[in-house]
Amino acid sequence: MELLEERILHDGNVLGENVLKVDSFLTHQVDGELMAAIGEAFVEAFRNEEITKVVTIEASGIAPAVYTAQKLGVPMIFAKKGNSLTMNDELLTAEVYSFTKQVTSTVSVSKKFLDETDHVLIVDDFLANGQAAKGLIDITQKAGASIAGVGIVIEKSFQKGRALLEDTGTRVVSLARLDGFVNGKVVFREADI
Amino acid sequence: MELLEERILHDGNVLGENVLKVDSFLTHQVDGELMAAIGEAFVEAFRNEEITKVVTIEASGIAPAVYTAQKLGVPMIFAKKGNSLTMNDELLTAEVYSFTKQVTSTVSVSKKFLDETDHVLIVDDFLANGQAAKGLIDITQKAGASIAGVGIVIEKSFQKGRALLEDTGTRVVSLARLDGFVNGKVVFREADI
Repeated sequence: MELLEERILHDGNVLGENVLKVDSFLTHQVDGELMAAIGEAFVEAFRNEEITKVVTIEASGIAPAVYTAQKLGVPMIFAKKGNSLTMNDELLTAEVYSFTKQVTSTVSVSKKFLDETDHVLIVDDFLANGQAAKGLIDITQKAGASIAGVGIVIEKSFQKGRALLEDTGTRVVSLARLDGFVNGKVVFREADI
Repeated sequence: MELLEERILHDGNVLGENVLKVDSFLTHQVDGELMAAIGEAFVEAFRNEEITKVVTIEASGIAPAVYTAQKLGVPMIFAKKGNSLTMNDELLTAEVYSFTKQVTSTVSVSKKFLDETDHVLIVDDFLANGQAAKGLIDITQKAGASIAGVGIVIEKSFQKGRALLEDTGTRVVSLARLDGFVNGKVVFREADI
C-alpha cells in the first residue's frame, strides 16, 4: 500500500537495530484518514470472503479494525488484555507471549460475541513474532468460527510471525512489509497489496 | 442523541444497582456505523471551535475519538495507561483514580504531540466520577494547550463526574445521560444534543 509506505518513510522513526516507531500516525497519535484508507484496503483484499466479524486486540489494533468492520458492515470486537472483562461473562482466552516484555499475558473475548456461524477477519497493527495474531486465531478457533485471514498494517518480514500464521493455514495480507533497516532507513519488501 | 439512546435501551444490560453494560456495541464489540454517527454528533456540537487535536484514553475511547478526529481532519491521540510508552520520550502524565478498581494509575501522552498551539477536544466513552477525563484535562493543560470541551458518549448523570469537569470551566457534551435505573431499565435525562 503505497500511501502507507510513503507515510512510514516520511514519519516513521527507526530506533536501534530493528525497531520502527510509528507513534505519530498509528500507535499513539492516529491519522483517521489513513485508518479509513487501510480499512478500504483490507475490504478489497478480502472481498471474496463472507466476513461476519472483525477481531483485533487492544489498543493500537482498534482504529484500523473499526474502519475495516464499518466498511464491511459487520461488528468489530477487540480482545482485552489482562483481566479487564467482568467475571460474569464466559470467556474465550489465549495466552500471548511478548518477546519484547518477556511476559505471557492472557487475552480474552466474551464467548457471546463469536460462534460457529462466524467467519472472522483478524486485524492488527503490527506483525513481528506473530504471538498476538496467533492468540486471536486460537480464540476464533475455540469459538468454532472460521478464519477469513489476517490483515496486518505493518509486517516485520525479517521476524517469524508470518510463517507462524501461514503454518496454521491462514492467509496473511500485510499492507507494508519491512525487510530490514539500512543506515537507519526502512527497506521494504513488496507488500501483499 | 436518539440513535444512541435507542441502542442503549435495546442492547444495553443493566447489572445490579448502577452498572450499564454496553459491551455489544461500544466497550468490547463495537458498531462502526454508530461510532461514525457519534463522531458526526461531536463535530456538530463543537462546530464553533477550531479544534486541532482529539485526545482520548485507551481502549474504549479510541473508536469514537478516531471518527471524530477524522471528520474534523485532525489527529487523534490516545493516552496510554501504565508504562506502555517507551522511556525515551518525554511524557505528559496524570494520575487517575479508579473508584471501581480502587487503584491509582498513571496515564501518559508523549510531549511531542501536544503543545500550546493546540486546541483540544477530549472524547471518552463513559463519564462517571470523571477521573479519566480530568486526567486528560490535566495533561492538556500541562502541555499549555487550550480545551474546546469534553465529548462523552454515555454519562452517568447520578455520579459526580460532570460537576467535576464543569468546575474546571470545561464544557461537557454528553450524547446520552443516564438518570438512573428503575426495575432494571435505564431512565434518561435529556441529553446535550
